[in-house]
Amino acid sequence: MARVSKRAEKTQFSPIRKLKPVADQARAAGKRVYNLNIGQPDIPTPKSFLDGVKNLPKVLAYSPSPGLDEAVDALVSYYEDQNIPLDRGQVIITAGGSEAITFALMAVTDPGDEIIVPEPFYTNYNSYATMAGVEIRPIETRSETGFRLPDRRAIEAAITPKTKAILFCNPGNPTGTVYTRDELQMLRDVAVKHDLFLISDEVYREFVYDGLLHTSVLHLDGLEERAILVDSISKRFSACGARIGAIASRNPSIMQAALKFAQARLSPPTLGQLGLIHFLKSSTYRREVAEMIEEFEQRRDVVYEEITVIPGVVCRKPQGAFYIIAQFPINDAEDFCSWLLTEFELQGETVLMAPAADFYKTPGKGRDEVRLAYVLNAQALKRAIEIVQAGLDAYSHSHIGVRARA
Amino acid sequence: MARVSKRAEKTQFSPIRKLKPVADQARAAGKRVYNLNIGQPDIPTPKSFLDGVKNLPKVLAYSPSPGLDEAVDALVSYYEDQNIPLDRGQVIITAGGSEAITFALMAVTDPGDEIIVPEPFYTNYNSYATMAGVEIRPIETRSETGFRLPDRRAIEAAITPKTKAILFCNPGNPTGTVYTRDELQMLRDVAVKHDLFLISDEVYREFVYDGLLHTSVLHLDGLEERAILVDSISKRFSACGARIGAIASRNPSIMQAALKFAQARLSPPTLGQLGLIHFLKSSTYRREVAEMIEEFEQRRDVVYEEITVIPGVVCRKPQGAFYIIAQFPINDAEDFCSWLLTEFELQGETVLMAPAADFYKTPGKGRDEVRLAYVLNAQALKRAIEIVQAGLDAYSHSHIGVRARA
Repeated sequence: MARVSKRAEKTQFSPIRKLKPVADQARAAGKRVYNLNIGQPDIPTPKSFLDGVKNLPKVLAYSPSPGLDEAVDALVSYYEDQNIPLDRGQVIITAGGSEAITFALMAVTDPGDEIIVPEPFYTNYNSYATMAGVEIRPIETRSETGFRLPDRRAIEAAITPKTKAILFCNPGNPTGTVYTRDELQMLRDVAVKHDLFLISDEVYREFVYDGLLHTSVLHLDGLEERAILVDSISKRFSACGARIGAIASRNPSIMQAALKFAQARLSPPTLGQLGLIHFLKSSTYRREVAEMIEEFEQRRDVVYEEITVIPGVVCRKPQGAFYIIAQFPINDAEDFCSWLLTEFELQGETVLMAPAADFYKTPGKGRDEVRLAYVLNAQALKRAIEIVQAGLDAYSHSHIGVRARA
Repeated sequence: MARVSKRAEKTQFSPIRKLKPVADQARAAGKRVYNLNIGQPDIPTPKSFLDGVKNLPKVLAYSPSPGLDEAVDALVSYYEDQNIPLDRGQVIITAGGSEAITFALMAVTDPGDEIIVPEPFYTNYNSYATMAGVEIRPIETRSETGFRLPDRRAIEAAITPKTKAILFCNPGNPTGTVYTRDELQMLRDVAVKHDLFLISDEVYREFVYDGLLHTSVLHLDGLEERAILVDSISKRFSACGARIGAIASRNPSIMQAALKFAQARLSPPTLGQLGLIHFLKSSTYRREVAEMIEEFEQRRDVVYEEITVIPGVVCRKPQGAFYIIAQFPINDAEDFCSWLLTEFELQGETVLMAPAADFYKTPGKGRDEVRLAYVLNAQALKRAIEIVQAGLDAYSHSHIGVRARA
């Protein structure tokens, strides 16, 4: 009997999507469900992006493996805008950030190697690692301290002879944490001392609030051969379906490896690149992105204000991205999230959230936490949190094992 | 000093593209270069495909990981048309055939495993295998016998305890060979006896000439749990840049594995799916594909007729796909292909071809062969072969090591 591979068995189904069938059932039963589980923003894709897609060539041909020259050049200009000077050969366009992470992992690890990732982390890192045959060693960051990086010794304690890289997401999904320059310099010092690569997932780069400045891994000196940037236009240009991302590095060996992987899959999607080129050439792109960021900052404020007044809920104000991790006064957030869909409604409405335990590698962690993606407008978010509050109240009266919290 | 991984070092640069810089130089020097190296057809993408892309949603969102329901359903109908009945859950849309092969390999192999592939084979299989940590064991097929499969014992001789699958391309790239039902049944018998998967790359399915019928791996009984179809719309709908392919199997474990990998990378490109849906719903799609196939059959005839009259050139008439492997009366086809670009011209024109040795795994094989992709119109093809003939003549007068051939 032909069996699938061990790596196929070990690869996880997306935990972020696992309650979707339950939500579909709730919808089929007539409930309105607010989707706060996945990072799919409701913001219209910029018109000039879509106009670029409409300007179609006669033959929809493969682009060069690293991307259309014009698209790569447009990204290079964009990075220059972000104070990240890069040459054309230092950027390869990928099928979303997903492919960029895969290329980065494949470029620096062999099966059996390890990478270090601060937890909680974007749960799909598990799949990329399993597919690459690589083990993730988590380092602890905590809700109570705003998911700041631990001190240097805690990171060094996770390093083994098999460790090849530290992978992190900045601004953080699911944490909303924006690393300081000091934190990044600490990572740099660790990487240099222990001969590691730093893979920085910066797909939320512009989503930074309260006037904070984002530090890219490519802003730091002394990392030329070690820094690998993983990027995506999905969120910042509200073009998730275009599947356009990028891998960038100043280490020519890394870019050669990425080019080999890129040639193997021939070409990133041409249509998304046409949108990207047109959008980045438009006179309005900076304003359109800035307006979107403002909108998300307001949403962040709404979610934070509404959720912190719920008795027993603990969370820090996120500084970036569009997620918030909240600790609830319950023992099993997955049970609660599922219960909200199957057993609960407030005037016919309920909420779909992602249980946060799935963002931790260490068993048992985050079981009383949920991740909310604030990807709906302020009014919908207010209503969604109101439903969560009513749900928590009803759940605590109908369940044993609900903790009282100060 | 941070080093890239062994797998990155081992992964090849695309041999099909390696003469491109030399061709670019030839162009820069004012020569016209006919591109016969890569499978990028010149056929306009069907209008109804492009119209589908123009009909854009307000938010260019992720599609579901297996593809938009409508796109999957459209493919299911297409397969029904091909006499391949499948349910919706048996098809997942991928970023081109490339991603489909990666998913198939990852689903059935672990690092250290082996797969069997008839050689010569599509050279990018090497990269997918290296990235998956898998070894390719080639089995010999020969130009003189039209690259037919060898008998069963020759295939069984290549099987080891590590063998997990036989991967083949039908119609064949680079061979143009269309496997008979008998050949496929032989592969089935081997797979069943030795507990192997059959991964059938059928991206050239419709490109079958001389009234031959194509047999899909999914046409055969007794392969429900073993057959994996790898597919792509790139060639048959002349939409290479859309990056839309598919993996299909009737084995639910395989589809579960593929779904996990699909969820990890979130979504295939949405824009290409919009084109696909619209095109497959159009009343003209069957005719448009049929017309394109007729055009390629004529091109096949032109290339074959022109090339076989060149003294010393040996090749079989390809039955499908749009490639031809020709044996030239020379020792080193790579040197000849490069020389055509650097040293030769016929009234300012020359030709870019792919040396065939790169399509063989066994060292030394195919050194006197080239692969031509007949992706230009008949007139251009005639002229290109004329240039090749003049080139061969000039090369044989200027080079030692040129063989005389009967």
